Amino acid sequence: MSQQTTGTDDTGRGHLLVHDPTLRDGHHAVRHQLTAAQLRGYAEAADAAGVPVVEVGHGNGLGASSLQAGPARLSDEEMLSVVREALPHSRMGVFMLPGWGTMRDLRRAVAHGADVVRIGTHCTEADLAERHLGLLREAGVEAHGVLLMSHMASPAQLADQCARLVSYGAQGVGILDSSGHYLPADVTARIAAMRAAVDVPVMFHGHNNLGMAVANSVAAAEAGADILDACARGFGAGAGNTQLEVLVPVLARMGWRTGIDVYRLLDAADVAERELMPKPPTIDSVGIVSGLAGVFSGFKNRVLDISARQDVDPRDVFFELGRRQAVAGQEDLIVDVAVGLRERRAGRGGQTG
Amino acid sequence: MSQQTTGTDDTGRGHLLVHDPTLRDGHHAVRHQLTAAQLRGYAEAADAAGVPVVEVGHGNGLGASSLQAGPARLSDEEMLSVVREALPHSRMGVFMLPGWGTMRDLRRAVAHGADVVRIGTHCTEADLAERHLGLLREAGVEAHGVLLMSHMASPAQLADQCARLVSYGAQGVGILDSSGHYLPADVTARIAAMRAAVDVPVMFHGHNNLGMAVANSVAAAEAGADILDACARGFGAGAGNTQLEVLVPVLARMGWRTGIDVYRLLDAADVAERELMPKPPTIDSVGIVSGLAGVFSGFKNRVLDISARQDVDPRDVFFELGRRQAVAGQEDLIVDVAVGLRERRAGRGGQTG
Repeated sequence: MSQQTTGTDDTGRGHLLVHDPTLRDGHHAVRHQLTAAQLRGYAEAADAAGVPVVEVGHGNGLGASSLQAGPARLSDEEMLSVVREALPHSRMGVFMLPGWGTMRDLRRAVAHGADVVRIGTHCTEADLAERHLGLLREAGVEAHGVLLMSHMASPAQLADQCARLVSYGAQGVGILDSSGHYLPADVTARIAAMRAAVDVPVMFHGHNNLGMAVANSVAAAEAGADILDACARGFGAGAGNTQLEVLVPVLARMGWRTGIDVYRLLDAADVAERELMPKPPTIDSVGIVSGLAGVFSGFKNRVLDISARQDVDPRDVFFELGRRQAVAGQEDLIVDVAVGLRERRAGRGGQTG
Repeated sequence: MSQQTTGTDDTGRGHLLVHDPTLRDGHHAVRHQLTAAQLRGYAEAADAAGVPVVEVGHGNGLGASSLQAGPARLSDEEMLSVVREALPHSRMGVFMLPGWGTMRDLRRAVAHGADVVRIGTHCTEADLAERHLGLLREAGVEAHGVLLMSHMASPAQLADQCARLVSYGAQGVGILDSSGHYLPADVTARIAAMRAAVDVPVMFHGHNNLGMAVANSVAAAEAGADILDACARGFGAGAGNTQLEVLVPVLARMGWRTGIDVYRLLDAADVAERELMPKPPTIDSVGIVSGLAGVFSGFKNRVLDISARQDVDPRDVFFELGRRQAVAGQEDLIVDVAVGLRERRAGRGGQTG
């Protein structure tokens, strides 16, 4: 069942495709430990609500279960098999970051019934997705390319990267606000530039660090996005993602159609809150600072630990990491920054603790 | 110290006055049971951050501590005395709803050092504030008039009600999104109409039922509001209020000045989360439905109880209460609505449980 109609019609603002990564991005919040019963319970509830795409996997995507990214409770194959069976109507999505996952992981996911596959890269490295998108097109699977930490690139850069993704075979492109940095005007500018650059569906994926995830998603729709990501109760790391069961009725009130039953969606969100999460995400001070700084929230524990050891304010560390345009994988930089801040303070004759 | 400058200057979008009702509206979330130590701890932290106005009291305002609204742990006088002493720089605000509070309560609050007094009425009943605003002006205290459940009135009606409040002596006017129903365009229309109708500062107070409290507050600022309400961690009943320590840096990033130190504000919010609340507010399904329906969230427990007893879907009850324009104080209507829904279903041959 494809619900991927786009454009406007006579009765309102048109159709939007809602893509639900609760069981993939939410996995970060529980260290990738969801059980088969948990995956099945939520997937069945989302399917019953008419959610068009349910994404599943390790938080970092196919192939990422490892000591470095954290081992998941279930293998990719186990997760895909359980969720595939729990989705009589909805399509199943998977996510992969080249480097964590390989061509072999992709082939396996396709064999296990993945309907929509997203290949993610850093926002200026679309080239890394070329081979994977090619493989997926050959396999006849819907393939999208998405750009992480997208606030670090300008609207024109993102438009260019999206055009490249399409040239590699992407049937959809999108941006993730990985550090929750955007305000609505930032989203409008980026989505509009992407919309003008490509003829395939355009996606926006928000995080709620600045309390703007729903407003940013609405701004994306108004600027021409066709696909919006959102998670039940915003399930995700740190401040969480766009809250699915809030976004859908807000879109409906504004005249957008999603094909989703709101009561059943609220039921699915209740299942998620009760069965998946120790507690729903809230916006704490670290979440706010990492959003303002535009820093990957996965750095949180490292920043807090290293700042305590160096006796510097972790907020200063976050803002300095933001100025240095830190991206995931640069954990060594945190020590450099913290030591630099301590030395600078000592040089100014401040406390040295 | 008056920080009530308004208008724009050369360096940005201008100044906004942030008014913090954490210790008044947040009180709803803990059944008005904050202790003197809790009030003092948060007030000192907010003062240190440079928050211009700190509001305190029973959730329903002066004089509301009662069996019906719930008895507060401390008397109004105790609360005001503690907080007054904890605010060397910030002004102290109080809130009163005529009917709950009386002229005598107002005089007492003034004697205990209230600097800014808000008189609240239902959105079409500004007349009820006339005598109270008059008394406050005679007493030489800054007096504002604010309108509750304001989504139930049109922009033109609200502008008219605000003009009346000013004619009674209000030195500031505002609207509360009591049920968390607004989307940004709704706020823009209302604040713009109010701004055009009066020459005094205009205030917006948001609730987060639809995840829009920060975006709505920004929309209010852009439409000409001078005063924005927000609470630490959004502390408040149900889905909570606009999150103060998110709003302030977002405004700063957009070029608005508030005079508040962001690091110290984050510290104050950490104090609030640790010392005041069992857990920060989140948006649950009941919060979403009452926001969509435009129904006072204080109805929540009654609606759930009565719906269970009548075996009807509480969501249907909320939406029907919204259609009937229920306001606080009409608890009897909940039974009427629930019984009506059950009978209608029985008449259609549906389940009767």
